[in-house]
Amino acid sequence: MQLTLHTMPGTIGLASHIALQESGLPFDVVHIDFAVGAQLSDDYRQINPKQRVPSLVINDTVLTETPAILNYLAQIAPESPIAIPEEPLDIARINEFNSYLCSTVHVAHAHKMRGHRWTDSEAAKQSLTDYVPVSMTECFDLIESNLLKGPWVHGERFSISDPYLFAITRWLEGDGVSLSRYKTVERHHDAMMNRNSVKAIQGE
Amino acid sequence: MQLTLHTMPGTIGLASHIALQESGLPFDVVHIDFAVGAQLSDDYRQINPKQRVPSLVINDTVLTETPAILNYLAQIAPESPIAIPEEPLDIARINEFNSYLCSTVHVAHAHKMRGHRWTDSEAAKQSLTDYVPVSMTECFDLIESNLLKGPWVHGERFSISDPYLFAITRWLEGDGVSLSRYKTVERHHDAMMNRNSVKAIQGE
Repeated sequence: MQLTLHTMPGTIGLASHIALQESGLPFDVVHIDFAVGAQLSDDYRQINPKQRVPSLVINDTVLTETPAILNYLAQIAPESPIAIPEEPLDIARINEFNSYLCSTVHVAHAHKMRGHRWTDSEAAKQSLTDYVPVSMTECFDLIESNLLKGPWVHGERFSISDPYLFAITRWLEGDGVSLSRYKTVERHHDAMMNRNSVKAIQGE
Repeated sequence: MQLTLHTMPGTIGLASHIALQESGLPFDVVHIDFAVGAQLSDDYRQINPKQRVPSLVINDTVLTETPAILNYLAQIAPESPIAIPEEPLDIARINEFNSYLCSTVHVAHAHKMRGHRWTDSEAAKQSLTDYVPVSMTECFDLIESNLLKGPWVHGERFSISDPYLFAITRWLEGDGVSLSRYKTVERHHDAMMNRNSVKAIQGE
């Protein structure tokens, strides 16, 4: 099986990149350079018509959407730290957390730079940008108080929720929210920084 | 196992409600009346601190987030039409489609009425509302041309992606987009209307 991740440093592609490292499977990485609009090119549109990253090319097929890529890697690497658990309710907790990240937290962050998805008014875009510290604070208040068990998202067992949360936590300071407000999230961030998978891809 | 769905007619809770019907499992439904702000009550906050629907109470624990609820039901009803497939890539396609619905399509729709999540400016909220027909059209253009295989989302086999798409398709006209623009989506909508699971919960 040939696995190639199309991603861009600083994006949510980091979660899939870390998961690939954790999986122990061989893989390649292709950087899609947003600075020159490479995600909008005809070549990349052939890979992912949504024109976003990440995309995971699996042999001759393409898989998109971070929760789906993470789940797939967890399925095909059953001996690795990201393996899917056995119990339906344990699986459900992973899907629940990851769905919250993709539908609410990532979306809150996206309003800083991607307001054009939801309005064509420049004034409204600025208003969306200005509000990001408020909405990201709401999200991380809930993560800190209710969702993140510690040391890993779901407790003692590492899972695909961990690289996913880590990738979004890294946006916090840039979104105007101090990581130091959140002691459990901060410990999670630091624990992730100490994993070999993260050390191996420094700069991503 | 006791299953109780907390939902509200007209919301995305419809997807989980249909999936429960398809599962063949016994379940109860509790309506959370948005008209009187029941989703914001202390009682409901105990069930779901996110103060949204749906919530699935499973014995004495609560599961939230539509993709997670649908996946869970698919796991515990392996003999039903919504059973999870065997192949990791088939599972991945379901997760990919459902992630797109929750992170992009549902979010596009939510900008009509839920602008307060992303701005405190009344003018910006109005701008978000006005743009919903554009963003929902973009989403359904992609669904029609690339994602929906027909007759069901993933082809000949029914899955949890089908009630999920159906619940969102029902918002189209209210969002200012004519369903008749999308022939494959319209056939999918009509096929869903003919399922016993949907007929059984008319008015939801």
